[in-house]
Amino acid sequence: MHEDSTQLGEWLRGDGPDCGISMCTRVRLARNVQGYRFAPTMSPEEAEELQTYLSAQLTTEPFQPKLQIVALDAVEPIERQVLIERHLISREMANAERSRSVAIDDAESVSIMINEEDHIRAQVFRSGFQVREAYAEAERLDELLLAHIPLAFSEEFGFLTSCPTNTGTGLRVSVMLHLPGLVWADEIEKASNTAQKIHLAVRGLYGEGSRALGDFYQVSNQVTLGCSERRILDDVHAAVARLIEWEREVRAALLDGESRARTLDKVHRSLGTLRSARILSSDECLACLSAIRFGVEQGVLDGLTHEQLNRVLLQAQPGHLQRLANTELTPTERDLRRADLVRGILGE
Amino acid sequence: MHEDSTQLGEWLRGDGPDCGISMCTRVRLARNVQGYRFAPTMSPEEAEELQTYLSAQLTTEPFQPKLQIVALDAVEPIERQVLIERHLISREMANAERSRSVAIDDAESVSIMINEEDHIRAQVFRSGFQVREAYAEAERLDELLLAHIPLAFSEEFGFLTSCPTNTGTGLRVSVMLHLPGLVWADEIEKASNTAQKIHLAVRGLYGEGSRALGDFYQVSNQVTLGCSERRILDDVHAAVARLIEWEREVRAALLDGESRARTLDKVHRSLGTLRSARILSSDECLACLSAIRFGVEQGVLDGLTHEQLNRVLLQAQPGHLQRLANTELTPTERDLRRADLVRGILGE
Repeated sequence: MHEDSTQLGEWLRGDGPDCGISMCTRVRLARNVQGYRFAPTMSPEEAEELQTYLSAQLTTEPFQPKLQIVALDAVEPIERQVLIERHLISREMANAERSRSVAIDDAESVSIMINEEDHIRAQVFRSGFQVREAYAEAERLDELLLAHIPLAFSEEFGFLTSCPTNTGTGLRVSVMLHLPGLVWADEIEKASNTAQKIHLAVRGLYGEGSRALGDFYQVSNQVTLGCSERRILDDVHAAVARLIEWEREVRAALLDGESRARTLDKVHRSLGTLRSARILSSDECLACLSAIRFGVEQGVLDGLTHEQLNRVLLQAQPGHLQRLANTELTPTERDLRRADLVRGILGE
Repeated sequence: MHEDSTQLGEWLRGDGPDCGISMCTRVRLARNVQGYRFAPTMSPEEAEELQTYLSAQLTTEPFQPKLQIVALDAVEPIERQVLIERHLISREMANAERSRSVAIDDAESVSIMINEEDHIRAQVFRSGFQVREAYAEAERLDELLLAHIPLAFSEEFGFLTSCPTNTGTGLRVSVMLHLPGLVWADEIEKASNTAQKIHLAVRGLYGEGSRALGDFYQVSNQVTLGCSERRILDDVHAAVARLIEWEREVRAALLDGESRARTLDKVHRSLGTLRSARILSSDECLACLSAIRFGVEQGVLDGLTHEQLNRVLLQAQPGHLQRLANTELTPTERDLRRADLVRGILGE
């Protein structure tokens, strides 16, 4: 990971295919090491031992891109918050007690969590809508893991995991979608239900249990067992392609006829708010940012780049704000700093 | 009156003393002509006759500044609406059926309504807080009226008027105050009650029954009988001076300590809204304008002039918008045009 928290990681690179609607694709593999109990039931010594072993393995020559280890018990809570906000570790892992760490490459396109719910949770990120490309990279990583680490595998079930819902392929493919059109046109529930009917999960920006802040949704497979990797990839790909298409149709309608003025009003007011506010909550910031992203993407808002929007999305988060300030901040202080930061990035 | 409705009249000239808080002073005299029934009970012929007579008198040489007659039954409804919005005629008069007109000078510092509730309602406007100066001008006008027109006067009661609440001096002195500080600090009711206790009326921007839009309040005397002109002037002057002082104290407090960020947030967001909105209601426009006026006045908002604010205040009104468009507009159309007009004046 970059020392500089203002750097944009792979998920915010903003240059992948279809990235106007599909921000980022993530492929995650759950793997465990033979001879160790699953992470939630490990003794502290066992966790410590496994962490040392895996950290050493993942930083050996064969693992490319080169990974750096961040030991989570050795860093400040703000630093862990930053890692969550960069999608490099899970919230559950940040708060766990056991020895745990994460291996990250410089571009933040790979993060391998050690002693999360499973011993190994390897994530690969690709900007935009790149299900197959992200999986190809994850597969390459998986082969390295298999070659150097004795993984728990059963001929009957496939890869064994701490929670049975991940057993088998241990694969989760998720695409982070920006769906303001469906939200504003009140079709998001219908879209979400449609995806759920074909056994896909629809979650908020930070996965399970998180709210769909800023109109961001993660669509991912729920089934990992009794289903080939290829089938999982195809299902997620097809569903996301349909959602992107749907979102495009709705966006066009929102900028057509009588809706146009209301939509433009919303987009421009949102930019006005971000460029004027002196006190800005995280929720309002994300809501405004969503409208602006829509406006830039649909070509109705000039003079702003995706990079500016992604910088705001990343840096206006509580952990990043506090890391930038180099101190803990109360929510009130954060709202003041957030407003200043946003005006700094977007201009007044 | 200026043919050009974008011109600012005396009440919006914005250069009088204390005009940061006290926009304008108005002195109004109610007078009636001997030998005619009061306006509400006149026959159409009588009204017609009196209107012709008074219109002729008011445009003779002695009446300076030179007055021009606008016959209200000869103009379009939009034009009457424009006159109301410029404070040159009353709403009641605009909607009346009888022959009626108004005599106005080019600077809109004088307006004499003919066949309003009284035969003659002479108004003098002065920018800022100028109670005595405005009254001196009204007195001069009154002497001209007395010299050229047989006015209804009783030794016992003073000037006779259609409604007894105006009998005696027929004098109403009112000062239009901008009191956002008292409103935001939730002290406006207290201030209003204090004024009412000393028999002053506190009304909205367009007088009786109108709401205090944009945090504008008109403070005026209620008693006209059994009270000398000097006493009325002194009472209004003292009460308004106290309100201005009060408003100043509250404004300073709103920009001090912990309140400062909230106040600046409100001020800057309001400007952001006016510079961004594509759909803008009259109420929202006035509310934002109030915050911006506060900001400019208190020196926390740069790059805007009072003239710009006064142009918005005047031209964003329904009548002015329609006159500018040269056609009737639905409320929805007005909200679109208002947003465009405001961005045109304040910049984007």
